[in-house]
Amino acid sequence: MTEKWQNLIGANAGKRLRLLARQPYDLTLPEALVVKNRLERYICDCGGMRLLYATQRVTDEVLDALQDLADECGLVAQFQKMRRGAIMNRISGYESENRQVLHTACRDLFSDLPAEPGATDQARGELAKLKVFLEEIDSGKITTAKGEQFTSMVHVGIGGSDLGPRSIYEALRPYGQFGREVFFVSNVDPDDAFAVLAKVDLSKVLVNIVSKSGTTLETLTNEKIVREALQKAGLDPRRHCIAVTGEGSPMDNPEEYLRSFYMYDYIGGRYSATSMVGAVMLGFFMGYDQVVEFLRGASEIDMVAEDLDMRRNLPLLLAMLGIWNHNFLDCSTLAILPYSQALHRFPAHLQQCDMESNGKSIDRDGNLVSCKTGPVIWGEPGTNGQHAFYQLLHQGTEVVPVEFIGCRKSQKGMDVEVAGSTSQQKLNANLFAQCMALAVGQKNSNPNKQFQGNRPSSLLLLDQLTPKTMGALLALYEAKIVFQGFVWNINSFDQEGVQLGKVLAGRFLDYLSGKTREDSSAEARFLKVALKTTDQ
Amino acid sequence: MTEKWQNLIGANAGKRLRLLARQPYDLTLPEALVVKNRLERYICDCGGMRLLYATQRVTDEVLDALQDLADECGLVAQFQKMRRGAIMNRISGYESENRQVLHTACRDLFSDLPAEPGATDQARGELAKLKVFLEEIDSGKITTAKGEQFTSMVHVGIGGSDLGPRSIYEALRPYGQFGREVFFVSNVDPDDAFAVLAKVDLSKVLVNIVSKSGTTLETLTNEKIVREALQKAGLDPRRHCIAVTGEGSPMDNPEEYLRSFYMYDYIGGRYSATSMVGAVMLGFFMGYDQVVEFLRGASEIDMVAEDLDMRRNLPLLLAMLGIWNHNFLDCSTLAILPYSQALHRFPAHLQQCDMESNGKSIDRDGNLVSCKTGPVIWGEPGTNGQHAFYQLLHQGTEVVPVEFIGCRKSQKGMDVEVAGSTSQQKLNANLFAQCMALAVGQKNSNPNKQFQGNRPSSLLLLDQLTPKTMGALLALYEAKIVFQGFVWNINSFDQEGVQLGKVLAGRFLDYLSGKTREDSSAEARFLKVALKTTDQ
Repeated sequence: MTEKWQNLIGANAGKRLRLLARQPYDLTLPEALVVKNRLERYICDCGGMRLLYATQRVTDEVLDALQDLADECGLVAQFQKMRRGAIMNRISGYESENRQVLHTACRDLFSDLPAEPGATDQARGELAKLKVFLEEIDSGKITTAKGEQFTSMVHVGIGGSDLGPRSIYEALRPYGQFGREVFFVSNVDPDDAFAVLAKVDLSKVLVNIVSKSGTTLETLTNEKIVREALQKAGLDPRRHCIAVTGEGSPMDNPEEYLRSFYMYDYIGGRYSATSMVGAVMLGFFMGYDQVVEFLRGASEIDMVAEDLDMRRNLPLLLAMLGIWNHNFLDCSTLAILPYSQALHRFPAHLQQCDMESNGKSIDRDGNLVSCKTGPVIWGEPGTNGQHAFYQLLHQGTEVVPVEFIGCRKSQKGMDVEVAGSTSQQKLNANLFAQCMALAVGQKNSNPNKQFQGNRPSSLLLLDQLTPKTMGALLALYEAKIVFQGFVWNINSFDQEGVQLGKVLAGRFLDYLSGKTREDSSAEARFLKVALKTTDQ
Repeated sequence: MTEKWQNLIGANAGKRLRLLARQPYDLTLPEALVVKNRLERYICDCGGMRLLYATQRVTDEVLDALQDLADECGLVAQFQKMRRGAIMNRISGYESENRQVLHTACRDLFSDLPAEPGATDQARGELAKLKVFLEEIDSGKITTAKGEQFTSMVHVGIGGSDLGPRSIYEALRPYGQFGREVFFVSNVDPDDAFAVLAKVDLSKVLVNIVSKSGTTLETLTNEKIVREALQKAGLDPRRHCIAVTGEGSPMDNPEEYLRSFYMYDYIGGRYSATSMVGAVMLGFFMGYDQVVEFLRGASEIDMVAEDLDMRRNLPLLLAMLGIWNHNFLDCSTLAILPYSQALHRFPAHLQQCDMESNGKSIDRDGNLVSCKTGPVIWGEPGTNGQHAFYQLLHQGTEVVPVEFIGCRKSQKGMDVEVAGSTSQQKLNANLFAQCMALAVGQKNSNPNKQFQGNRPSSLLLLDQLTPKTMGALLALYEAKIVFQGFVWNINSFDQEGVQLGKVLAGRFLDYLSGKTREDSSAEARFLKVALKTTDQ
């Protein structure tokens, strides 16, 4: 029996929100930020993070209506079902993936009663294998051919097997074990793999090949490049290559790999960073115990996400504020701007996780959606962005809602005082100033120095970026994305939109590699025009 | 006397285009790409690049109207005036920067009659200084304290002094001289500078500090961090630091810097990559002659940009196709997707150059604009993006126009054959496939496997990414952005939108560093809420 869920368009709260959106809160009025203790009341604490949202164009009335919308659509109830193993990855009445969605099970390790015990058992099993493997390479039981320690890892994957792990590695570099580093290869562009190979000492490298299906074109191609390089260097690839893949996939082969770790089909690639997809690399880099801290941070957020009260449920709150800006205030994009150089690739991961999940036009009953679904997600770290695209945020004709992310303390604790303040103070002064400037704007007799204000943003503050808070930050966004998918009543867990490109790429490849002879098809004519070298 | 220019709203061609936009060309009809030799006719060759634009929703009629719009707005005439030194950076009737716009003069070195001889003379003068300096470090006339060669450069800058140089460095890494590499520090986040310092051998480092004003907060702060690190290592900063700055700026000081190179106030930061801002770093890295090739490529495009015929003038064509999608087909964003790992940071540079130039709401007469100006620009390299956000491009509710960039040959020429094709063939098969898939779409009885198509894109093909074609690519986008600013009749050369944030940051910093005592202002209350550490 198929459950039917209410969506944004059908809900009564949706109608109220449309009315309220005609006159959203005016952040440019005098005292707009301080009346009714707005700054102090519009906060939410959770998992070591605090969200300040007084600079959103919301009122108590809007928040109440958003809460009602969340209730009518059963968002928390659906999240609970998801964590407990319901088949959430499906389209009723049509062929679809028909799978459970259980990335949360990977970190449901800290309670006596996991939500889906079977999946958590599998996660525990893989973690135990990883722990043993890490002990073996630490203790010297597994070594290079020369009996030395492995010092670097080349992580080969693409999409979900790349962006999440890579952005988390970048975020947690100060937590690395002495002498260990990780390189990433993803693109099928051969320049990518060869550039990385030129940097590493192959004799001391562990190669971690990550592909759930074991058939990802880019990854298999890059694996071959790396294996050939090892062989050319007189090394035995089987002593260097490990795999993260689905049990029984073509890559699950002990004759080819030193060790295999499993991922399961109830975890989508873009939600897989807390599975072995991220854990093997992170374990090599920063050790097993820090991986557990990372998972602990994620788990805390999964628990909070089951709270029905939006004002205490941070992922739900972030989701509903996004719905207000996107569906009711009609903003097409969302900028995610971390004031932390360590988070410089985190927006790219969220771009994937969000846009691949919610860039859909069909609801879970196979009908064309009647509202806008997922926004375009983009972002770069501040303060860099201030010297780049912030001009448009302040004075452009497109209103871009912003989610700022900041840390009270730097990671390394090293700093310098210039002109009476530290770098960390300057960084945060800029962060807070942007949040406020976008909201309140500024009048001026010179029209070019006017700022309209009323550009909504939130500010998420971590005390410090650590394995645990990074886990929390990741899980916060995963849950936010899932909640938004539920509001739109779409399937956030498949990715049929990537299939057509694959089919056409195969056709082009047949021409390029000579398998198909030239003819008068559009593809052949396209190629002829594309490949003709122009005169210089 | 102030010249008045026509804009998109006032032009007759604008009205025609609005009518044509009601029924844009349907790319999903059978044979839509091949009728009337569309694939073969809708191309433009220029500067070693070819643009294929049959997959845009245009017809001959639309193109004619876009040409008329370009003519009515005098786009090419304005570009010519700009190159010849007109004061294009101004708002009539209001206080404004009132400056010439002469980044093109930096590369106008290959004709006997430069468009603005004075500025080109200054560029030649700086290049001659650079050539001498590079010879001195190559020949050993200038060395480290130990008499050794400098092997690495730390380039310190932010915004225009960072994103352009950094993205070009990344693009041209295979062209580096043996043993030389460059690191970049930009963010005021102290973790950024300290991470770079941990990687380099300070005794062999040249530190290149880049700031036109000589007063950029982030850059001065990072300079201090680097100088202190040098001193701690027992090194004399004056033997390691060079400067790129405005003549007479606080940084123009021979007692503090080994050498200074100048930039002039007629070049905006985001357009400065072909000035000393990019040239000093590139010269150190790949040698003087390759810098000249880079400038040659840019110069070729500047010449083409003076052609009145849009179908031959590649930057103008790219600009007008963008206007069609943004102002007439109502798309809010533009994705720039290079199928080249070497170009992985080029979208970030264009994001700055475009959004800081054209994210404006006031026209050049100080009136509120009555049309949408600059779009949100974003992008990541393919094929990576295909495994990330392409789902939304194909099946989302937001239509995102795409500018694909590809190269027929890889840079390194190293490759591997897997399953009967090389990586470069796979890369390009995917590139061509995406372009076509977005356009033609696909019907299917399963609604979730349907592709609506009619998602516009262009494909820009380089034969290979070299210093010269990189220069051409850069200048192509610079000119495109300038042309679009002219269509909207805005000033693409100032950035007043960054000022309010600076003022407010100063106020927050006064509280943070204890200069202002706590009071009941919104800023103080904001800080109190933001800085209170949450319980874990």
